[in-house]
Amino acid sequence: MEPSTVLVQAEALKDFCRQIFVHLGETPANAATITDVLVAADLRGVDSHGVARLGFYVEKIRLGVIHPNAPYQIVHEAPATALLDAGAGMGQPVSYRAMEMAIEKANRCGIGCVTVRNSNHFGIAGYYAMMALEAGCIGVAMTNSAIFVVPTFGRDPMLGTNPIAVAAPAGAERPYVLDMATSTVPFGKLEIYDRLEKPMPLGWAADENGAPTQDATRVIHNMHSAPIRGGLTPLGGDGELLSGHKGYGLALLVELLSGVLSGALTSDQVYPVTASGEHLPAGLGHIFMALQVEAFRPLVDFQASLDDLERRLKSAPKAAGQDRIYIHGEKEFEQAERRERDGIPLNRKVWDEIVKIGAELGLQFPK
Amino acid sequence: MEPSTVLVQAEALKDFCRQIFVHLGETPANAATITDVLVAADLRGVDSHGVARLGFYVEKIRLGVIHPNAPYQIVHEAPATALLDAGAGMGQPVSYRAMEMAIEKANRCGIGCVTVRNSNHFGIAGYYAMMALEAGCIGVAMTNSAIFVVPTFGRDPMLGTNPIAVAAPAGAERPYVLDMATSTVPFGKLEIYDRLEKPMPLGWAADENGAPTQDATRVIHNMHSAPIRGGLTPLGGDGELLSGHKGYGLALLVELLSGVLSGALTSDQVYPVTASGEHLPAGLGHIFMALQVEAFRPLVDFQASLDDLERRLKSAPKAAGQDRIYIHGEKEFEQAERRERDGIPLNRKVWDEIVKIGAELGLQFPK
Repeated sequence: MEPSTVLVQAEALKDFCRQIFVHLGETPANAATITDVLVAADLRGVDSHGVARLGFYVEKIRLGVIHPNAPYQIVHEAPATALLDAGAGMGQPVSYRAMEMAIEKANRCGIGCVTVRNSNHFGIAGYYAMMALEAGCIGVAMTNSAIFVVPTFGRDPMLGTNPIAVAAPAGAERPYVLDMATSTVPFGKLEIYDRLEKPMPLGWAADENGAPTQDATRVIHNMHSAPIRGGLTPLGGDGELLSGHKGYGLALLVELLSGVLSGALTSDQVYPVTASGEHLPAGLGHIFMALQVEAFRPLVDFQASLDDLERRLKSAPKAAGQDRIYIHGEKEFEQAERRERDGIPLNRKVWDEIVKIGAELGLQFPK
Repeated sequence: MEPSTVLVQAEALKDFCRQIFVHLGETPANAATITDVLVAADLRGVDSHGVARLGFYVEKIRLGVIHPNAPYQIVHEAPATALLDAGAGMGQPVSYRAMEMAIEKANRCGIGCVTVRNSNHFGIAGYYAMMALEAGCIGVAMTNSAIFVVPTFGRDPMLGTNPIAVAAPAGAERPYVLDMATSTVPFGKLEIYDRLEKPMPLGWAADENGAPTQDATRVIHNMHSAPIRGGLTPLGGDGELLSGHKGYGLALLVELLSGVLSGALTSDQVYPVTASGEHLPAGLGHIFMALQVEAFRPLVDFQASLDDLERRLKSAPKAAGQDRIYIHGEKEFEQAERRERDGIPLNRKVWDEIVKIGAELGLQFPK
């Protein structure tokens, strides 16, 4: 059912992508960070946010939306907070630095919070949240994005998929890693139903009248038209019956914290294009937080409590027909272990595009 | 359809409830805080968390679960964080103080975060989040609770309704105030369908096998049985089709931040009873955060951006058949204005219970 795949080892993929980003103007250090974030997505099974995005980044660099190797600036700083301006650079290096700063501040003050404006797509939010784990911190990362989500009772998309990622360090058990879009499903799920030409479940998306629809092909067509109408529902679906207004509220919360607090553009404003067709910097915003567990209680006690809670949840009685209760991040850790060992199965089209991008830069994937 | 109501003015209700709590052993200052939080819920239309809870608090005081006028202790403090032990006192006074501390810390450090352990039911989370508004801060409040929510693929309730409340200051527009349980709906919605003897929407609750059910009466019966089986679904409903695992993840996030980080009991452990039937302190945990907007950008700029975003959302095209898009908190502000002016319509049973509680303490509601 899936198109054919090419099996690639993570390290080889990282090496190749690093070279591509260096050729596109990034420093080796920045290129390594960008690549690590991208391949982490592929390892964890979030294929939509991995090297499949390489073409997207290359296009944005060529359009002038992304300025490679742009220096970030610290705009404001307080003991536990900072605001960075990413200078329209790639989202990953500035986000990595912002999370490092949040952790440093948490080590000094108990909690740290760093927002970023004038940035670009930063990859998977979970990567930055997980940076906190080794420091014994709880990590939080959020970002706004291009518009996809229709507010409750609305017709048009006004909010991004605006993900929330939180990671917390366990002891013997796996860390808790929530990394969720605040839409019911990601856009990629609609693309799967479109390819299969099957009706998608009701509650995932709204048509051009803002009405619930099972027609994935139609929604995708609408999302690629101008003006864009309809789109993804917020978590909880259409209307208020299953509390779609809560998902809408969470999407707006992420918008507030990553877009408005940082002074970035909001999801309905990002990726601006002038009347004459010139592409301006994307203007995305992010927020990163770290809570130093030791400021509240000994880390070993916290880890023991989280281990116990995870075990009680996993060993709790199952619903009829189910044999497993998951902790958030568990599936992704298992996937990453498999793919570290066996290689990453890249979609043939994705693979072909990476090879083509490399070839245009005079690079060949090592045999 | 609704039982008859008694119209009571907010100030008279506060006066009476204050006297009740003073007679139950609270200081006048604590009694004022408790009452203000309770009546704020009634004003905002969250009737389940208002004075309807008076009997619940009285019962917990009589059982020794709540220790009236217990002093709180600062267990740990860092520049931007603190952990308080509520000493098994009422949840409202310690939560009020914790949010004050979070705001003070945000004023000095840019962000402040205070957790509370060994506490009790604190009323509506939104009350504390909204305390941040006057200080030009974004406020956050979360708490764990008794078990109601079944984890994805589970059969039994393991998590509380674990609310998330966030408030952000706007300028000319109303503040954004999200105050949401991480369950699809509150338990009170099932009670409405039970009274009406109507099937409730699919996706709200699970039966004693963990299977989706429309039988509210059955779920309520199960929730009042021992051992408890079935319960509310997390936001997103049963299974993963509409992303119930995200709501489960949010409930677990609140558990982590309010229960595990503070060293409180978790939702599946709170309200412990010994083998001999003795009720121990509830052991609930909360977390409060404040972000000082001025640490990131001028408050007036933030307010102007939030105003603009709210206006764009509210004036966006509506779905077919809809005439209004709401900002979170808007309905509650409008309800509070009406009820401040016209009085609070208390359910007759709730009114009778309040009068009875007062009478037992020798208090009479002023004519």
